[in-house]
Amino acid sequence: MAGTDSSKALPATVRDDGGPAIVLVRPQLGENVGFAARAMLNCGLTDLRLVAPRDGWPNDKSRAAAAGADAVIEHARLYDTAAAAVTDLNLVYAATARSRDMLKPAIVPRQAAEALRVAYAAGQAMGILFGPERSGLTNDEVALADAVVTVPLNAAFASLQLGHAVMILGYEWYQGGETAVSTDGMAERNRPATKAELLGFFEHLERELDACGFLRVAEMRPNVVRNIRNMFQRAGLTEQEVRTLRGIVKGLVGARGRNRGGE
Amino acid sequence: MAGTDSSKALPATVRDDGGPAIVLVRPQLGENVGFAARAMLNCGLTDLRLVAPRDGWPNDKSRAAAAGADAVIEHARLYDTAAAAVTDLNLVYAATARSRDMLKPAIVPRQAAEALRVAYAAGQAMGILFGPERSGLTNDEVALADAVVTVPLNAAFASLQLGHAVMILGYEWYQGGETAVSTDGMAERNRPATKAELLGFFEHLERELDACGFLRVAEMRPNVVRNIRNMFQRAGLTEQEVRTLRGIVKGLVGARGRNRGGE
Repeated sequence: MAGTDSSKALPATVRDDGGPAIVLVRPQLGENVGFAARAMLNCGLTDLRLVAPRDGWPNDKSRAAAAGADAVIEHARLYDTAAAAVTDLNLVYAATARSRDMLKPAIVPRQAAEALRVAYAAGQAMGILFGPERSGLTNDEVALADAVVTVPLNAAFASLQLGHAVMILGYEWYQGGETAVSTDGMAERNRPATKAELLGFFEHLERELDACGFLRVAEMRPNVVRNIRNMFQRAGLTEQEVRTLRGIVKGLVGARGRNRGGE
Repeated sequence: MAGTDSSKALPATVRDDGGPAIVLVRPQLGENVGFAARAMLNCGLTDLRLVAPRDGWPNDKSRAAAAGADAVIEHARLYDTAAAAVTDLNLVYAATARSRDMLKPAIVPRQAAEALRVAYAAGQAMGILFGPERSGLTNDEVALADAVVTVPLNAAFASLQLGHAVMILGYEWYQGGETAVSTDGMAERNRPATKAELLGFFEHLERELDACGFLRVAEMRPNVVRNIRNMFQRAGLTEQEVRTLRGIVKGLVGARGRNRGGE
């Protein structure tokens, strides 16, 4: 039954960029397969391979838990053994919670992601094996892998939900490909204040603080003024915000300002 | 109902090392609270705060989904509002999927973890807000935070399961613990303001801005108030600076305040 669905093309909206296959070996709960599928698509991964899922396939609970990652669910491929699921892959990692008594390099997810990106750039096919919820991968299954990946976590409570484990590996894979950070256009819509605008606000504020007696202790004045300026400098104010602040000062002074004949 | 369970001690096996509180705002599905609790304990986090959970509390589905993270579930604290849940915290991040039209710094989880570790080393209390599954945090809830954290993911399928979102933030927090963080001692001399202190200043300022007519255009008021709050949030104010700002407002109001008989 290996690769039964491989002939189906992915919908055009789902771009398979050739990231690592996620191989779930004998997963127990149908919904965990769905959680894993959702986490995969969050990270741009679409190649889901299932080895003898206990609750059968297709599975309604998997589909529901995938929460819209239908393309991943529909194009999952079934295999009888972990060995059969990885035959076409060049680089395979095994996710394990415990350290194993095996002569196998053990790495953390960030290192795995780096190595996967190198392999990806070289055009290799890659995969990550995840074992059953309760027992994890057998030693023979781990032996299929080039290295073991273990997530460094609270040793007193290290058992990861299957979906969470896929999420962490997928997340690290995705971050490894992200060099450009998305801009939200915030800075373009809101020009940072110039130093001249800031200074104008500071002088306005200090004039009013002198007038109301807030800065009346002469020997304290330089220090207090500096602290106030530092505080507003740190906020990284926009030009609009400086205008708002001037409006606030003017508003608060209000009647007092008018009493002494304007401002 | 705030903090009803705070008197219960954590069992000795669960070491609360003072990592960030996880604040789930109006979570919908009970089981998602459990997934989040499990992810928290995986990462050594134990301070779970629930704001008006839809499915009620305590919740059997939450406990089952927590898969052994009972200590986190049992010591969860309930609050009526997100604001009430963060009053004792010095540094608060808001996890959001979408970029917001707000003047709030947007960072990625790894940057958040770095900043949280610095705050942790300085003895600050920290928290991360997560919104309801379907809708996310409201703008007013986001405004409580010092910055927005967004996980860079597949833009075509960016909706994270609540438990997965907690897992990624917790994972980055935990990985950040591997490196020692240096403190410069400045933070100890200048304690960051708590959210309660900040809120006290905001309310003072807004009362005076109402009184002087600055906020007189009713339909603009919520937006103007939010922008002003965001601006001051960004400055990362200390407790001393908040007192200075209250002094400034009081001073500027001055004669006007006395004219109407007080303040």
